[in-house]
Amino acid sequence: MCQLLGMNCNTPTDIVFSFTGFATRSQEHADGFGIAFFEGKGARLFVDPQAALHSPVADLVRRYPIRSTNVIAHIRKATQGETRLENCHPFVRELWGRYWVFAHNGDLKGYAPHLHAAFRPVGDTDSEAAFCWLMQELAKNHARVPTPEQLTDTLTELVPQVARHGTFNFMLSNGHALWAHCSTHLHYLVREHPFRPARLQDEDLSVNFAELASPQDRVAVIVTEPLTRDEAWTAFAPGELIAFVDGQPLRRPARP
Amino acid sequence: MCQLLGMNCNTPTDIVFSFTGFATRSQEHADGFGIAFFEGKGARLFVDPQAALHSPVADLVRRYPIRSTNVIAHIRKATQGETRLENCHPFVRELWGRYWVFAHNGDLKGYAPHLHAAFRPVGDTDSEAAFCWLMQELAKNHARVPTPEQLTDTLTELVPQVARHGTFNFMLSNGHALWAHCSTHLHYLVREHPFRPARLQDEDLSVNFAELASPQDRVAVIVTEPLTRDEAWTAFAPGELIAFVDGQPLRRPARP
Repeated sequence: MCQLLGMNCNTPTDIVFSFTGFATRSQEHADGFGIAFFEGKGARLFVDPQAALHSPVADLVRRYPIRSTNVIAHIRKATQGETRLENCHPFVRELWGRYWVFAHNGDLKGYAPHLHAAFRPVGDTDSEAAFCWLMQELAKNHARVPTPEQLTDTLTELVPQVARHGTFNFMLSNGHALWAHCSTHLHYLVREHPFRPARLQDEDLSVNFAELASPQDRVAVIVTEPLTRDEAWTAFAPGELIAFVDGQPLRRPARP
Repeated sequence: MCQLLGMNCNTPTDIVFSFTGFATRSQEHADGFGIAFFEGKGARLFVDPQAALHSPVADLVRRYPIRSTNVIAHIRKATQGETRLENCHPFVRELWGRYWVFAHNGDLKGYAPHLHAAFRPVGDTDSEAAFCWLMQELAKNHARVPTPEQLTDTLTELVPQVARHGTFNFMLSNGHALWAHCSTHLHYLVREHPFRPARLQDEDLSVNFAELASPQDRVAVIVTEPLTRDEAWTAFAPGELIAFVDGQPLRRPARP
């Protein structure tokens, strides 16, 4: 089973602390890793078919504090598709002049969507096929970049059509919002004022966010399994889709 | 003026030696750098709005010998578009289930192509607009990945329509072939058996390829200005487009 890590912030923030805890888990997820950072509309993608524990690319990510408002990371335990670079998550495509980044955890059995438009998989994973199908259908539903609210409505209609094929925990971001969908395991927390110290679950490393963050900073961290021991993580319900904007879940009026 | 570096090989080869010489030139090209590596159908893209001389990402590329059959690198002196991540070359798009990587050196004045299909620029450079237009027109001309010969014919028709707007030195690769087009400055050489030592033009560094390469290896290196002092570089003619496959220019029968 793969693991996912996402971050959505109201201020560009580095993910070094959370990524360090996350990458430690890659001993049992030895089939590659990847991480995508948005900086404005631009995106950087680092992928490596080596395990994050041994990869020089992961080492760079741990040492180079890239400040980003939206990050999606993935460590891979191959279920479908060989351990090749083109099968490493996250995947990136361009739509409406924006980059879209996607990573998936789970297994979609016998999933072969009808891809008739401008998005085709390069590798042979179920995950990239699902991403291409979502992009194809989003492109049909909107003529230009929709608001996070509009896109959430469209995803709410599309996602169950994929999720019925198996486990579909995923994260998607366009550099503005980050959408996370849970089939089985996904947790999040919002770090905001007053900040407190936190200690990593799997490593003897702690950080006092009160010393690092400004009172107005807000960061949402979304991850397969909680990363820290002393913070209150909220579990997603199965089937739940949450859009994160400016470091918190998007609050919306109840629909009629 | 930006600088371009490309490599096309018949065997996965690391570009550390050539990139080291190339990155040295970035003192006067301080507006970012980028490099894309194909490994099979997969691609890795490293971009940084910092100059290659000071970038931790460039440092990784110099120290981590990534073996690739097709590489495109770019160091940037901004002419159009701000120094932002989304304006860093190379650019990547997917078409026909393959990644396409593009980098440009030059300046296209008043260039605003009609982009009506699935490829839109994310940043605001003339270069990314030209790439999107080429992708759009290639998609119209072929239903699936064409052979290097077929794609060369299509590019031969398309490229002058862009080049009449200004300087259009570029490199394009799909991980199989690498196309290089020269408006003003571009040079190439083929390293093959018998291999000899070479000394970098701008740095006191030499390498003896005879000790590193196997007799059957063949590598084409394409660059704005020659990288080494003691090798015979061939200058492109203005307007010349060359496709490189398996480490050498594509030989083709004369067309009737």
